[in-house]
Amino acid sequence: MPGTAVVAAIDIGGTRIKASLIDADYRVLAELTTPTPADIASDVAGAVRHAIAALSQQAPDSDVAAIGIVVPGIVEEHTGRGVVAVNLGWRDLPIRELVHRDLGLRTVVGHDVRAGLLAEHRLGAATGQQNVLFAPVGTGIAGAAMVDGHVLTAGGWAGEFGHLVIDPAGPRCACGQTGCLETLASASAVVRNYRAATGRATTAASIAQAVADGTDETATAVWATATTALAKGLTAAVTLLGSELVIVGGGLAQSGDVLLTPVRSKVEELVTFQRRPQIVTARLGDRAGSYGAACLAWDAG
Amino acid sequence: MPGTAVVAAIDIGGTRIKASLIDADYRVLAELTTPTPADIASDVAGAVRHAIAALSQQAPDSDVAAIGIVVPGIVEEHTGRGVVAVNLGWRDLPIRELVHRDLGLRTVVGHDVRAGLLAEHRLGAATGQQNVLFAPVGTGIAGAAMVDGHVLTAGGWAGEFGHLVIDPAGPRCACGQTGCLETLASASAVVRNYRAATGRATTAASIAQAVADGTDETATAVWATATTALAKGLTAAVTLLGSELVIVGGGLAQSGDVLLTPVRSKVEELVTFQRRPQIVTARLGDRAGSYGAACLAWDAG
Repeated sequence: MPGTAVVAAIDIGGTRIKASLIDADYRVLAELTTPTPADIASDVAGAVRHAIAALSQQAPDSDVAAIGIVVPGIVEEHTGRGVVAVNLGWRDLPIRELVHRDLGLRTVVGHDVRAGLLAEHRLGAATGQQNVLFAPVGTGIAGAAMVDGHVLTAGGWAGEFGHLVIDPAGPRCACGQTGCLETLASASAVVRNYRAATGRATTAASIAQAVADGTDETATAVWATATTALAKGLTAAVTLLGSELVIVGGGLAQSGDVLLTPVRSKVEELVTFQRRPQIVTARLGDRAGSYGAACLAWDAG
Repeated sequence: MPGTAVVAAIDIGGTRIKASLIDADYRVLAELTTPTPADIASDVAGAVRHAIAALSQQAPDSDVAAIGIVVPGIVEEHTGRGVVAVNLGWRDLPIRELVHRDLGLRTVVGHDVRAGLLAEHRLGAATGQQNVLFAPVGTGIAGAAMVDGHVLTAGGWAGEFGHLVIDPAGPRCACGQTGCLETLASASAVVRNYRAATGRATTAASIAQAVADGTDETATAVWATATTALAKGLTAAVTLLGSELVIVGGGLAQSGDVLLTPVRSKVEELVTFQRRPQIVTARLGDRAGSYGAACLAWDAG
């Protein structure tokens, strides 16, 4: 008797691999999270093989029909190559070819954030929308845009929302520019600015809680810097992309309206003739990438 | 004997209507330029009818198969409506329906800059490219982007490149924001800044000439402000859109390398991890809009 047809959805991040078996109705039949091996760049196929073997033990009645892999950095979808991923240590890695050769299964490779947007569009906060900006705000700030129902790729170079320069007098960014949105509004930026002002180390979640409680002026000021910068970045993106819907994801979005209320209010103030976007939180959370990998794998079938 | 099949390509601008008869090989068989009637919003069909009648006298052996019309402002291509065009005085005008009802010919309505990009892609500076930003720099600064071979529309709201905020401490823009690219780098901005510094009224072309001659420090300083702002805007656009090619058009582009050399050099300085775009001048000049109207009309056939 044949098992349930599933795809293996593999989201390879800088610190963790999230892997799932997902059926054609997007039900998750098995899932696991495992640390990303230090040698991932030299054995990406091995990491995928181990993850699938472990998942198959969890769901022995499933038949893996295809593999969807999503990775960060610059990704060339049509060739399945990881062009560059600084925190994974690869350059021009033929991921699709390596995994396909190792496992003999149809394999599709995509970009974690663009695939996450595809998943939010199919299963989450953006169903029925055509013009959407997806902005995960966590350690860094990433981005992906859908315009006219099409996710922008540009050979892997589109959507670097976190590297819009918001304040040329701002902090130096790892990318080499100064005052990138990421240096002003990411969870790391909030934590760093709070520590600079108070000498105290804390988490972005604690700062968000202090803002909600209204008990800590420094937290409130640091938060205002971040939300104002994010609103400026969103206004620039909407001006170029005509987005009707903005989905904010990532760790900082877990603070919900503590983040979104000031961002909405500032965007409302900044936007003049442009379309006023609806601004919401992501619905798929940190599963957006693996659901996106499943979308890619099923679509390629 | 049937005449040569042509389309009537009508580019309705704030001050002039440029109209042509263009055959399927994009040869121009007749063309005229006429002032835009003050009552264009109340009789757009009449203006188109008069233009086509005059063109048909110039080329009596041609048979008009379809009409392509391009207009500025916010345009909804799929319904053929002019949503808003401040300098033409219309709001939500069903241009396609009005013209089709009046003339009985297949009619397509598009946006002047997006259609211009389509024409540059088919016939001009962007042939064979997939990721292109088209930025006409004249009285204002407009924009249209092609990503993955698709011209971004977003219901008519995409591509407002001239309204990226470059300097929040800059001049007030007609759009209500402050420090838009258009207030810093358009031909009007260059003329205004030169007059503010010297008390002398002159043209953007004269300022460009003075910059080329190296004889006028004020001209050089005003020009540097404009080219630096333009480079910042292009860097932001490339960060989001992954453009490989930037086509600068409009009046200011007629100064050629006097404009492009400093813009290229500044973009080279600003861009870090992003794709370095090639930056060139438009090839179709002020005919881009009417060629674009012809592309739309032929494509709809």
